[in-house]
Amino acid sequence: MNNIPTVMILFGGSGDLAHRKIYPALFNLYRRNVIRDNFAVIGTARRPWSHEYLREQVAAAVHESIPDVDEAQLTEFAGHFYYQSHDVTNVEHYVTLKRLAQELDERYECGGNRIFYMAMAPSFFGTIAEHIADQHLTGSGFNRLVVEKPFGTDLASAEVLNRQIQSSFAEDQVFRIDHYLGKEMVQNILPLRFGNSLIKKVWNADMVKNVQVTLAERLGVEARGGYYDNSGALRDMVQNHILQIITLLAMPEPKDLSDKAIHAAKEDLLASLRVPGEQAVRDNFVRGQYLGTENTFEYVKEPNVAEDSKTETYVAGRVEFGRGPLAGVPIYFRTGKEMREKKTRVDLVLKNEPGLYGDKAQADTITIEIDPANQIYFRLNGKTIAGSDLRPEKLRYRFSENEQAEVPDGYERLIHDVFVNDSTNFTKWEELKRYWEFVDAIEAAWQEENAAGGKPVKYRPYCMGPDTSKIFADPKDGWIYQ
Amino acid sequence: MNNIPTVMILFGGSGDLAHRKIYPALFNLYRRNVIRDNFAVIGTARRPWSHEYLREQVAAAVHESIPDVDEAQLTEFAGHFYYQSHDVTNVEHYVTLKRLAQELDERYECGGNRIFYMAMAPSFFGTIAEHIADQHLTGSGFNRLVVEKPFGTDLASAEVLNRQIQSSFAEDQVFRIDHYLGKEMVQNILPLRFGNSLIKKVWNADMVKNVQVTLAERLGVEARGGYYDNSGALRDMVQNHILQIITLLAMPEPKDLSDKAIHAAKEDLLASLRVPGEQAVRDNFVRGQYLGTENTFEYVKEPNVAEDSKTETYVAGRVEFGRGPLAGVPIYFRTGKEMREKKTRVDLVLKNEPGLYGDKAQADTITIEIDPANQIYFRLNGKTIAGSDLRPEKLRYRFSENEQAEVPDGYERLIHDVFVNDSTNFTKWEELKRYWEFVDAIEAAWQEENAAGGKPVKYRPYCMGPDTSKIFADPKDGWIYQ
Repeated sequence: MNNIPTVMILFGGSGDLAHRKIYPALFNLYRRNVIRDNFAVIGTARRPWSHEYLREQVAAAVHESIPDVDEAQLTEFAGHFYYQSHDVTNVEHYVTLKRLAQELDERYECGGNRIFYMAMAPSFFGTIAEHIADQHLTGSGFNRLVVEKPFGTDLASAEVLNRQIQSSFAEDQVFRIDHYLGKEMVQNILPLRFGNSLIKKVWNADMVKNVQVTLAERLGVEARGGYYDNSGALRDMVQNHILQIITLLAMPEPKDLSDKAIHAAKEDLLASLRVPGEQAVRDNFVRGQYLGTENTFEYVKEPNVAEDSKTETYVAGRVEFGRGPLAGVPIYFRTGKEMREKKTRVDLVLKNEPGLYGDKAQADTITIEIDPANQIYFRLNGKTIAGSDLRPEKLRYRFSENEQAEVPDGYERLIHDVFVNDSTNFTKWEELKRYWEFVDAIEAAWQEENAAGGKPVKYRPYCMGPDTSKIFADPKDGWIYQ
Repeated sequence: MNNIPTVMILFGGSGDLAHRKIYPALFNLYRRNVIRDNFAVIGTARRPWSHEYLREQVAAAVHESIPDVDEAQLTEFAGHFYYQSHDVTNVEHYVTLKRLAQELDERYECGGNRIFYMAMAPSFFGTIAEHIADQHLTGSGFNRLVVEKPFGTDLASAEVLNRQIQSSFAEDQVFRIDHYLGKEMVQNILPLRFGNSLIKKVWNADMVKNVQVTLAERLGVEARGGYYDNSGALRDMVQNHILQIITLLAMPEPKDLSDKAIHAAKEDLLASLRVPGEQAVRDNFVRGQYLGTENTFEYVKEPNVAEDSKTETYVAGRVEFGRGPLAGVPIYFRTGKEMREKKTRVDLVLKNEPGLYGDKAQADTITIEIDPANQIYFRLNGKTIAGSDLRPEKLRYRFSENEQAEVPDGYERLIHDVFVNDSTNFTKWEELKRYWEFVDAIEAAWQEENAAGGKPVKYRPYCMGPDTSKIFADPKDGWIYQ
């Protein structure tokens, strides 16, 4: 679809996310003609910018992210941007905003189509949603709402926010962003699983011993200590990215490739997610907190972090589903800050029936690397060169440099999907609800532990985190990626 | 095992095979201490060479094949070689040979161990075997016979030769060489098939649509027109290499990894090889003969080839077995001279159940490339970058340059196996017999056709051979490697 007529109202127009991700993404969509003549963007924020200043900022943002920009095209593109200074709590301002949106809608012939994009501090999402409703900001065409994470801080707050949103938007108009769902290799999971008879044949509980998801970060909390200390790895990474990836790995085959069918299959799976009780949390989850080095702070010494903070910067755990092709298969995950290297990957470990080669045959594995490389590989057993013993051989597909250059930023992909109304790679409410239920149960158990003097395990930074051996169902198992 | 005491009697000691392959292989085995102090080689041939001249030839042969030779070591090695001028039809000469063997056995303390190696014109194999028997050349230790191909020119002549051999050697003392069985990737077939739960799960008639074996040569008959015109591609390539590779691909799992168990599994499979009748040959086989170019001869114009020759330089066909994991699966093969490039490879094409992606999903394939590269790859469906369509992605394992440098010559590997008495990678009589039955049936049908004016299809050289569409069971199928 080309030249999709839209007025986009962007809350957080002066912010970092808009600058780094949204403006460059919109420019690329403009170059690809997804948006063209009939679009306008209203950037809003508290600062008193002019239209012209916003346009300069948009141009600067594009230059910072994209090489080889056609200046004339960029000027033309930036001309579609308008700035409206806006206090999100001030009702009057929504009236002004509505008027500007209507005016631009007429000027650019947008047919009453609106995309509202919440790209600012999450504490304002609810307020904005309510004012959109009470001031009737929605247009006479399509209306879509894009919401950045976090969507609430627990199930209760997420439910409140969802109700506020529902005053203006039906569920199928809400696009909750999880930028991991914009990543190439995450989007490759379903095609690989359901587009290959070879993989379908082994991707099931008969053949898979366990699944391992790693989302390791090299960085610490950096300047985000204040936010992070109230969140922690569980809410910051598990509640969204980790659980979405696990859902894609474990969901049953959808009845077709429509977004509706895919979400139905996800919900079918998630209905069987086993929410752990206190004992299960003790047995199957590990929380950690990084120590310092000569050159880096221990977590509790980081700026804006409480000195006695029990916030986890690492979490590992075991998840199981009662349904889907991997029903009953342990799915292990871990995510943490200040780990050895930045890496997001999935490892499927196949069952290793003792065969002709006995112990010499290692378990076959299927690995999907999501970050930093885009690659898939199978580790199989082959013959040692010139000998007869077995050795592991990796069959690998890795994006070439040219292919890597073609990979769109996740944001470009996701914003594109909002324009074409494809919700496949967004988080639906039913999914989010189950994720919060799962995370809340763990959080609650940890709060109990904290009250009894428990706390995260300290771990040496820039390694692979604390000991997680207790979470493995089979003591002989461990992480494939070490 | 080291320093295996042996006197080797090499018939064809002045020949090309000895020079190019056997002497370098023996030197490498010497460097690896498989043979060391207690070995001697008697080279025999008609020419009146001296021991010294043979040693010079051995040293020259080693230099031609192996870089970085230690001269002192080579001189020491060559000192184990002795030459005996020998007319294979002259009984007296066997008496001399026996005496020399006994003398060297004592000098080098070889314990009566003998390896007889027939590396000369096959027409003399039978005569030599009979004289070994009637002059009692076998020693008091182990006795092994190595026979180069071709082993007969049809079943009847092979049976005659086998009876001649059996006068001195039991079947488990006979090592029939098929140098394709010395190739790394051919030897990797069983480890891949039986050492990986992933591959075992799909390597069966439920999952495999067809198997394709290609053994393409770039060269024409060159100086071998006289030999080749009496043989043809069917006997020169199919009877041995192609059928051995197919056997490895289709055989059931052996009960253990011993050579006996592996040959038992092969025989179990081959008992179910469907030998084609005349109609089946017409339907399932294609024979071709190359045309000329500006710079190369048409086959029938090659030196020492009959002008009206109906010898095939290309053959393609379909094989099926009644047993084993691929029972009933069509196995296609082709081999030819003057094809586009030198390439030996195996492609397994998996069945493609119409799934979520319908026609967009190509069949998954598993490819093992044997020559010229050593590589294995899976062609699977992944997602187009930045899109949602499917595209093929190849997961590949290919020997690195360092690994490639470690690959021993097939002869070194096979001669090693003779020393250690491992017959895994040699052709047993029962296999050979079935291969000849199969090939004889095709040859007989072609002779009938020839009598009725039939002949091979002419094909354009340096392409992929004649049209073979008729051999495919499903008209939608074709060669994966094109």
